[in-house]
Amino acid sequence: MNTKRKVEVFSAGCAVCDEAVALVERVACSSCEVTVHDMKDINAAKRAKTLGIRSVPAVVIDGKLAACCEGRGIDEAILRVAGLGRSL
Amino acid sequence: MNTKRKVEVFSAGCAVCDEAVALVERVACSSCEVTVHDMKDINAAKRAKTLGIRSVPAVVIDGKLAACCEGRGIDEAILRVAGLGRSL
Repeated sequence: MNTKRKVEVFSAGCAVCDEAVALVERVACSSCEVTVHDMKDINAAKRAKTLGIRSVPAVVIDGKLAACCEGRGIDEAILRVAGLGRSL
Repeated sequence: MNTKRKVEVFSAGCAVCDEAVALVERVACSSCEVTVHDMKDINAAKRAKTLGIRSVPAVVIDGKLAACCEGRGIDEAILRVAGLGRSL
């Protein structure tokens, strides 16, 4: 029986993603099995989509997207309010 | 005088970032000057840090990080509550 906690980090390999990977690996313990998924990999990107990931880095613990990574990503309505698409 | 609205998209070139760039370019109008910054570029990454960007994609309009991109990024306390680092 696999008693390890499955920790997945979805990363695009940029500076902010690398920092997140470092943090997760620093905090992880012997009970944590950490896997880093490269978002450039089509299967990782597909999996990310099914998990509702719309920004990276994103962390999934035992198959559940961590609360700090939920509901993220850009928002068209908010961008419009900030001026995007409004002629000057 | 430059009357265009400066719209910057910080991207790591992954699937979720590409989707965001496409959305911004779709919504942008002739008053919007859209620039896509590659987070793999050290200067873009430095600029992103000064703007408080901790996840990508991120959109900055006239020098201000859009509300949907503020305060993002992974959170160590939340990850610990979700189990990261807790032995089984």
